[in-house]
Amino acid sequence: MADYTLFFNPMSRALIAQWAFAEVGVEPELSLVTWEDKPAALLEVNPMGKVPTIIHHTASGERVVTECAAICHYLGEMEAPDLLPREEEKADYFRWLFFAAGPVETAVTNKAMGWEPKDEKQEMTVGFGNYDRVVDTLDKWLTAHDFVCGDRFTMADVYVGSQVDWGLNFGTLTDRPSFRAYQSRLQGRDAYKATLGAIGG
Amino acid sequence: MADYTLFFNPMSRALIAQWAFAEVGVEPELSLVTWEDKPAALLEVNPMGKVPTIIHHTASGERVVTECAAICHYLGEMEAPDLLPREEEKADYFRWLFFAAGPVETAVTNKAMGWEPKDEKQEMTVGFGNYDRVVDTLDKWLTAHDFVCGDRFTMADVYVGSQVDWGLNFGTLTDRPSFRAYQSRLQGRDAYKATLGAIGG
Repeated sequence: MADYTLFFNPMSRALIAQWAFAEVGVEPELSLVTWEDKPAALLEVNPMGKVPTIIHHTASGERVVTECAAICHYLGEMEAPDLLPREEEKADYFRWLFFAAGPVETAVTNKAMGWEPKDEKQEMTVGFGNYDRVVDTLDKWLTAHDFVCGDRFTMADVYVGSQVDWGLNFGTLTDRPSFRAYQSRLQGRDAYKATLGAIGG
Repeated sequence: MADYTLFFNPMSRALIAQWAFAEVGVEPELSLVTWEDKPAALLEVNPMGKVPTIIHHTASGERVVTECAAICHYLGEMEAPDLLPREEEKADYFRWLFFAAGPVETAVTNKAMGWEPKDEKQEMTVGFGNYDRVVDTLDKWLTAHDFVCGDRFTMADVYVGSQVDWGLNFGTLTDRPSFRAYQSRLQGRDAYKATLGAIGG
């Protein structure tokens, strides 16, 4: 039995987890999930019924991780400490991991849904301000740095990079030279090629 | 000079960071930020102009952390390893930290804005499904566990707990017995009393 089970659908954010598994060199057992017929084993561990969800089968019991960003980081913790941040990189690493999981994810999705703050008061309520400010902030960082932690690839780049890659491919993220260059650096990685790259992502 | 600067406003999510600082026993220098007149020092390190933003002044340079959840975790990393997850707690810790920073934050805020998915297709697009499913999922966990990592308080509870505390106080989170009990456990902590508790939060 594999050490991990990945609840998966090839047309979903579960591809991010697949890339993360490839980066840490672990092959999970895949459990295919369709929107119409979610397996009981998935609903039991994650009532959200979302993919990706992973189960880590350990000697001391089963551990469940949901949320793409958490899965990327957790796999680094368990399987690839060299892809985790060094002491002096932790600020950047966690800052941008949460920035991508919160403001970027929400601003991009809400814009696609046509849900946008209409004035300053609404911008305060939504917390991240507005879509353009989120994009400009990420653009500024990626113009000045090759990766989330500067010049070194870490597990944070799997998640932040997936947001950029996905956003550019689907036209939901504003096209910027810094985003294209970052995407290109990530697409050169073997683990990307073997997963997202293989499906033309 | 203090080791940390906290860009702060007492009527904002910056209170979460203040609670986090109190948990790790560090007093930051406070820099008051008003929405109308944001200090250049803040905009320089965080173009979002958001509070909380912290600067960690270290011998090797200044480190910037934004996003409430990242700040809570980072302060644990730097100042209070006993409030970080043990090996077997990491799955729960990161799962719920990102669940609160993503689905909970977005579902609660979007509902308050009147932005809600109208059908299954829209639920797939927003990722978290719908508000009720997010609330039920968190409720199920907190009904079965005292804290994010089971029976032990960690830095994840500062962030997840703030979402619950804030949501109950402002009526933006559905009232559930498990949420009230969790809030009550957190409100008993000295660090909570000295910060959020002191302003009647």
